[in-house]
Amino acid sequence: MKIKVGINGYGTIGKRIADALIKQPDMELVGVSKQSANYEALMAIKKGIKLFVDENSVEKFRNAGIEVSGTRLEMIREAQVIIDATPDGVGAKNKALYLSENKPAIFQGGEEPEVADVSFSALCNYDEAKGKNYIRVVSCNTTGMLRIICALRKNFKIKKVRVVLIRRAADPKEVKRGPINSILLNPVELPSHHADDAKTVVKGLDIFTMAYVVPTTLMHVHAMNLQVEGNPSKEDIIKTIESSNRIIGISKGSGIASTAEIIEVARDMGRPRYDLPEVIFFEDSVHSSNGEIFLSYAVHQESIVVPENIDAVRAMFGMKEKEESIGLTDSALGLLRGRLV
Amino acid sequence: MKIKVGINGYGTIGKRIADALIKQPDMELVGVSKQSANYEALMAIKKGIKLFVDENSVEKFRNAGIEVSGTRLEMIREAQVIIDATPDGVGAKNKALYLSENKPAIFQGGEEPEVADVSFSALCNYDEAKGKNYIRVVSCNTTGMLRIICALRKNFKIKKVRVVLIRRAADPKEVKRGPINSILLNPVELPSHHADDAKTVVKGLDIFTMAYVVPTTLMHVHAMNLQVEGNPSKEDIIKTIESSNRIIGISKGSGIASTAEIIEVARDMGRPRYDLPEVIFFEDSVHSSNGEIFLSYAVHQESIVVPENIDAVRAMFGMKEKEESIGLTDSALGLLRGRLV
Repeated sequence: MKIKVGINGYGTIGKRIADALIKQPDMELVGVSKQSANYEALMAIKKGIKLFVDENSVEKFRNAGIEVSGTRLEMIREAQVIIDATPDGVGAKNKALYLSENKPAIFQGGEEPEVADVSFSALCNYDEAKGKNYIRVVSCNTTGMLRIICALRKNFKIKKVRVVLIRRAADPKEVKRGPINSILLNPVELPSHHADDAKTVVKGLDIFTMAYVVPTTLMHVHAMNLQVEGNPSKEDIIKTIESSNRIIGISKGSGIASTAEIIEVARDMGRPRYDLPEVIFFEDSVHSSNGEIFLSYAVHQESIVVPENIDAVRAMFGMKEKEESIGLTDSALGLLRGRLV
Repeated sequence: MKIKVGINGYGTIGKRIADALIKQPDMELVGVSKQSANYEALMAIKKGIKLFVDENSVEKFRNAGIEVSGTRLEMIREAQVIIDATPDGVGAKNKALYLSENKPAIFQGGEEPEVADVSFSALCNYDEAKGKNYIRVVSCNTTGMLRIICALRKNFKIKKVRVVLIRRAADPKEVKRGPINSILLNPVELPSHHADDAKTVVKGLDIFTMAYVVPTTLMHVHAMNLQVEGNPSKEDIIKTIESSNRIIGISKGSGIASTAEIIEVARDMGRPRYDLPEVIFFEDSVHSSNGEIFLSYAVHQESIVVPENIDAVRAMFGMKEKEESIGLTDSALGLLRGRLV
């Protein structure tokens, strides 16, 4: 018996979750729902994915020559769970519909935590999401941050985390976002929301975040400073991080020092859309002294939350235990372990 | 009696120091020396600045239709001090010439500290440079960082400084530098050289720096985390920083959150070349709790070191005491106090 999943929203995140869902042995994609009658809708149909649209939009899609399989409400009724990948804030508005249809749902990190019963990051709190009807996968930056934190806390006692997030300004497909020649404090007033967001998953964490938007489309980069008990060696830190799922290292020998080079490797590997759902961790950035650790890693904003959405479905229905679900997701998606190069 | 100054190197920094020198009541610009027979050389002549060139380059400049006033050696001999604003590493090679001519010199932060008797940042160690024959003004990022640190340590005891530097990739005039769509760890291995550079001025400072290059030309931005004794209020921190020379604040009300907006203000103010030799400090970024301070500021890489070069001349010849020199430089350059807006 496969769990039937519908995806509401077929943009950057939604289309990636759809592709990932199709690859899962225990899930079935009912279809996707979309508002814009554009190239992405056409691509869905080309891929054989059923397209459902808002009741009032059927005509608009027909006029654009896009044949739809039914209405969004029909998709919601057919699915056992909805993954809501609509733009920030729209998910919260959609919740009334899910509630009235008595349908569980998974939201994205653009929504406030209150939209769901639990905020979710698979490596950190899979078990907490078990049996919940409404789960919120935290945002791309928070997902990346939490993977590193939850990998490290397996072996080290973390006292404080201080992170500077250097964020990409826009996704590659976006033509109206900026800045194109500026560094933007996002926000000026500190901390950025990422600290509170991380605490929705790891309660009581002493974390402070500062975020800056810069003119690039490829990935975020985080500069992390942790205070831990004891004085772990660089080797132990690298080993701990690279023994985790969903984090892969860049070796010193590779000569990679930038997001452009990371993405070039993903392209050379033949990754679809050059996606890297793994956090990319710079081994050689690790500096450890007097209980203080410094390190850098990169986060592919378009794909990082995809595996978490898949795991959220399994946690919700109690289909698998944590390690089993993570392992299944990662092997279905062909995620790497250890090192990128 | 004015001190006669020659400037060796007439690029981004050299041309700004030349303009600043001309405005000082106690200095006389002998001329500038340049290698490239380009638009900047022509602009110097248009401004009435004497152009001196390498003995072997006179012909090259004549062929380009640029009339020179003499050779570089003649300029060096006529001047009482040379400000070397040649590209990174070239200053060190020039030192042999200055030594053989028995001529004191001021170098830029692209040189190793060993090139000079003292590394210099006016607010921090003016007195240490008094009477020295060879002074090195630290680089743009270090100059910005040290201004904030030395302003703060007037009122607070600083225990630790942790800085993430988000660096501009190229200056506006540069057409061959990058990246244009990437975040570059610079370097991957930590700390970046800025920590050691700051310690050449403030000995024994507990400082750690991480640096990243991003695709923008306007300014650097620093995310700073300090640990201090006590628990200073946000108001006291802002007051302390804004009571300093060469640091000006951005108020909450201004709505400025980026380097693009800061530069727009400089353009609206009629600043030559939109230069901002002041550090631009975001008042509203200050967060203070449990002896930990977080704040953000921006550094205009093209002009930030200009006032320090002027002060270095006065310190070298014992022409003025610290506060007097800084005040004179700043008033001659029309630098602001308090707030930008």
